[in-house]
Amino acid sequence: MKIRLGIVGYGNLGRAMEYAVAQNEDIELRYIFTRRKPSDIKPVTGDIKVLDVKDARHHVNEIDLIALCGGSSSDLPKQTPEFARLFNVVDTYDVHAKIPEHYENVDKAAKAGGKTAIISVGWDPGMFSLNKMMSEAFLPHGRSYAFWGEGVSQGHSFAIRRVDGVLDARQYTIPQESALEAVRSGNNPELSTRQKHTRTCFVVAQDGADLSRIEREIIAMPDYFADYDTTVNFISAEELAKNHSGMPHGGFVIRGGKTGHSDENNQVIEYRLKLDSNPEFTASVLAAYARAAHRLNAEGSIGCKTVLDVPPAYLSAESADELLRKHL
Amino acid sequence: MKIRLGIVGYGNLGRAMEYAVAQNEDIELRYIFTRRKPSDIKPVTGDIKVLDVKDARHHVNEIDLIALCGGSSSDLPKQTPEFARLFNVVDTYDVHAKIPEHYENVDKAAKAGGKTAIISVGWDPGMFSLNKMMSEAFLPHGRSYAFWGEGVSQGHSFAIRRVDGVLDARQYTIPQESALEAVRSGNNPELSTRQKHTRTCFVVAQDGADLSRIEREIIAMPDYFADYDTTVNFISAEELAKNHSGMPHGGFVIRGGKTGHSDENNQVIEYRLKLDSNPEFTASVLAAYARAAHRLNAEGSIGCKTVLDVPPAYLSAESADELLRKHL
Repeated sequence: MKIRLGIVGYGNLGRAMEYAVAQNEDIELRYIFTRRKPSDIKPVTGDIKVLDVKDARHHVNEIDLIALCGGSSSDLPKQTPEFARLFNVVDTYDVHAKIPEHYENVDKAAKAGGKTAIISVGWDPGMFSLNKMMSEAFLPHGRSYAFWGEGVSQGHSFAIRRVDGVLDARQYTIPQESALEAVRSGNNPELSTRQKHTRTCFVVAQDGADLSRIEREIIAMPDYFADYDTTVNFISAEELAKNHSGMPHGGFVIRGGKTGHSDENNQVIEYRLKLDSNPEFTASVLAAYARAAHRLNAEGSIGCKTVLDVPPAYLSAESADELLRKHL
Repeated sequence: MKIRLGIVGYGNLGRAMEYAVAQNEDIELRYIFTRRKPSDIKPVTGDIKVLDVKDARHHVNEIDLIALCGGSSSDLPKQTPEFARLFNVVDTYDVHAKIPEHYENVDKAAKAGGKTAIISVGWDPGMFSLNKMMSEAFLPHGRSYAFWGEGVSQGHSFAIRRVDGVLDARQYTIPQESALEAVRSGNNPELSTRQKHTRTCFVVAQDGADLSRIEREIIAMPDYFADYDTTVNFISAEELAKNHSGMPHGGFVIRGGKTGHSDENNQVIEYRLKLDSNPEFTASVLAAYARAAHRLNAEGSIGCKTVLDVPPAYLSAESADELLRKHL
């Protein structure tokens, strides 16, 4: 029997989740729950019921698991604990500093309901967390590095849009090849913020705006740009729509470790993601952890979990015997 | 209380295991068991008892876990089941085709003894298996690639030494940068054996040997070299000892996946190892899985496991709370 899934929220991530589920033959998307008018949403992959989010509780017996696809700032802190009382859930909560608090809230709710929740799934947090943790466990003597990009930073793009005279903007975070090579050498270099990443901005300005003032204001913006080498390119709205409407992202987690009698050997572990679509990759990871949450609950493992807690085999649709023969 | 470890076998891997344990403050190496004369072995990291392997059974109450550091062809198929009846164990069994059979034998023994065994730990099998499995679970539509090197292949080095007139040899497997770039592009290219790797050989020949015959024989050797672009360099025994006595290795596991409504987006996951010392990295991974085996047994999870079955958090010496705050 297929895992019967419901999605809460149908923005970029929710729609990506719909596509991801369609790639997994053992998972079936039954419901999309939304705060919008349900008739405004047209699922594209099959005959999926769209209902008001308030009605989800009436369908507990038809749903094995809910994927919460709302935002981390206001939706998930409320929704995940609320739904975890009634359903097995997965979410992508990504406010790093508040994850322990979110974990506590979800854990209480899930335990009260006898449900299983896996939070903060995706790549950062998610696969980057997992790879950092594992490579530090393998190589206790060493140094960890993270690089982001090449990819679009929503936060930095928003920051540019707040500059007077800017109509629209897109910001790319770009890891510096020289810094990556220095880390891969195993020498565990000390790297400044400026050495690790550059920032490239594509900006649509109002007609007649003072472009050099806009450029100066962006480059000098504290926290966002002042510590980086930043390039500002002014382009037309058409060009922005045509060449910069995708959501590419990715990055690198690298551990430079030392082993041997006197730490004389360098060992480098690198995990890299190169993503054409950030939300679609996040959703793909979320679908696999949805499968895992369902299985964990079926064997009585309840409460809140993270990617660090899940046995990898639970992510796969393949049987234990297939996994052994195919991957080991 | 520290995890009390015993090592069986004190070759390259056993000695590397001694170094690895010294980097982990929660693990204490108590015993080395050997088939050699115990007094011939001088541990370098502390006050460690060296005993005959036959005496291990008399120390079951002083040892929490045994790391089996023998060879896969003749030692581990016998030793791992034998020890798994009496001890929690980890091994690095690496004969891919026979892993299911080894798993069955170890599982029976470990269950009979109420013990926990984790087999085939290391990087291939091991971390390569884990990353291949996980990336295929995340990206069901796609193609997986593995590249090895740059590193020394023991099997190919041995094969060269069997050529008439060869005194010693070292063979490096080198992944082709052009093939790696093609895979990273996300286009999931079809790659021939020759396109993926080249082979470079350093050969010490007998005085007066026919070097061009040796070169021809190596390059034409079926299975080992015939399908590759192979370069043969003749060097002196001194040069071989000076420049080619290390055991570097590593490689790449890459998944090129497709997501979206019509598989229109490329998503690439890459895991790379760049190792100065192959046995020391394997031992470092083995030490972390030793910790995990001990914990799994403590919570009653007995029988045979692989890296695919172990919750990642069990690999770390850090507490669940530390992991949550530090890595997520």
